[in-house]
Amino acid sequence: MGKPLHFNKVAIIGIGLIGGSLALVLRNEGIASNIVGIGRGLHNLESAQRLGIIDSFTRDIGEGFKDADLVVVAVPVLKIAETIRQAAPHLKPGCIVTDVGSVKGAVITEVTPLIPEGVHFVAGHPIAGTEHSGAEAAFPELYIGRKCILTPTQKTDSGALEKVRFIWEATGAKVVVMDAASHDMILAAVSHLPHMIAYTLVNTVGDIEDSGVDALSYSAGGFKDFTRIASSSPEMWSDICAMNKAQLLKTIDGFSRRLESLRALIEKEDLAALRSEFGRAKSLRDSLIKNNPKERA
Amino acid sequence: MGKPLHFNKVAIIGIGLIGGSLALVLRNEGIASNIVGIGRGLHNLESAQRLGIIDSFTRDIGEGFKDADLVVVAVPVLKIAETIRQAAPHLKPGCIVTDVGSVKGAVITEVTPLIPEGVHFVAGHPIAGTEHSGAEAAFPELYIGRKCILTPTQKTDSGALEKVRFIWEATGAKVVVMDAASHDMILAAVSHLPHMIAYTLVNTVGDIEDSGVDALSYSAGGFKDFTRIASSSPEMWSDICAMNKAQLLKTIDGFSRRLESLRALIEKEDLAALRSEFGRAKSLRDSLIKNNPKERA
Repeated sequence: MGKPLHFNKVAIIGIGLIGGSLALVLRNEGIASNIVGIGRGLHNLESAQRLGIIDSFTRDIGEGFKDADLVVVAVPVLKIAETIRQAAPHLKPGCIVTDVGSVKGAVITEVTPLIPEGVHFVAGHPIAGTEHSGAEAAFPELYIGRKCILTPTQKTDSGALEKVRFIWEATGAKVVVMDAASHDMILAAVSHLPHMIAYTLVNTVGDIEDSGVDALSYSAGGFKDFTRIASSSPEMWSDICAMNKAQLLKTIDGFSRRLESLRALIEKEDLAALRSEFGRAKSLRDSLIKNNPKERA
Repeated sequence: MGKPLHFNKVAIIGIGLIGGSLALVLRNEGIASNIVGIGRGLHNLESAQRLGIIDSFTRDIGEGFKDADLVVVAVPVLKIAETIRQAAPHLKPGCIVTDVGSVKGAVITEVTPLIPEGVHFVAGHPIAGTEHSGAEAAFPELYIGRKCILTPTQKTDSGALEKVRFIWEATGAKVVVMDAASHDMILAAVSHLPHMIAYTLVNTVGDIEDSGVDALSYSAGGFKDFTRIASSSPEMWSDICAMNKAQLLKTIDGFSRRLESLRALIEKEDLAALRSEFGRAKSLRDSLIKNNPKERA
């Protein structure tokens, strides 16, 4: 874990569930003396201050980032580069900039040329979240036991990387370091693809609704669980599609090939092969729960 | 609801979650004087008797169905016709036979020619279930507020239909009558297709695991919810694929076409169209919860 770490001024842009929960840990653990929240929504910033998540706030990027030792960019993934472009002139030498975006390759490509000499950028992605958003949803235990992936490049300063690792370990997250391409491939498979499929499934049932049959009213608990992620923010997910396009297309293609061969087995009524396909999926799925006994099945 | 209904002897084959929960209601409501459980597993039948779900049990189909006024066939969907073929010689005139299979068209086609003169078959499907199975999982509240679909044909005796409706209404289920083809189309969309997709998704991630990347360990709560149904019984689901093949292939094709067009929007980075697709799915999904406020989101 290294020696204790301390930042005088931390600036966090985007005080929602992710940024707000991190701020609470930085305060509780004494890692930050002074946390400034930056954002667009006055009401949310006021809530964050009232809830003790931040010490002060501003909607002025220059003012917020001035003299910061650590900058956390917790804005939607498509806005990270533009935010850092605006912040760059105000960043002091030695400042560490990190993000929490759920796509890493495109963010690193866009952000790296914007970082001033002497400032250190460390790309990161804590894999955590709930259905709720905004400062009022923030809580310091959000990251406990979750994974946080850091994706340094050859240019990343190793001291800055260790400091960002320290911060995330302080939240209770398990930090894993890998390259951005691996991150984007893994997240495409376990998060981005499932969202595409959930949206597509609900719209497929919607087509039946449009034909005048109220199919949705016959859905049971399984369908509701299965489609919960189709209630996610359309804005956030269209952004992720754009940012992780290459890996997402690749996993969609892998999924479509598999669905096509499953379709052929159903058409042939090859029950033995179907049982073996379903059995493979069942053991993989069951292993997820066995390895995380505290998770609900 | 009609006048009170009473059966002297009820025979239920398959005393699991579905058959056992129905038996508990028939006893609690005084609809049956004597409930005989029929099955293959001695241990399960003994549990059912000990738990007061059935009065007695037998593994002899002839013995079990003899003199029954009501027969409930709660075996896997592929075994319904064979069960009724074995039972037929033992059924007395006036007996009502009903099933709980999740496919209706194929069951009706197979079963109708097997039903003896004077015996009445009413095809049904209570849409309920939990992850648990066996007599020990049974509880009388299982069907409260759930839909139960009955799919009579032109040959179905209207008196027998009303009696089966009475029974399901006594469980607290909302009974809906429709033709078998509509049932199979709706269930293909809201249940059978989601299972195919969940299995396929988990196997797609499994392909990545096979390539040496432990993608599953990076999955968060959304993936676990989304893939819970991939832990369902491979035997049961390969049977359903065979029994509802035509409708299932049709809904898989509808889904594949939608996924293909979503893929094209991602490739073009048409963010506006993506937001609109995702927004449509989100409102449909959100409406599921709004219309059932007691369901968890």
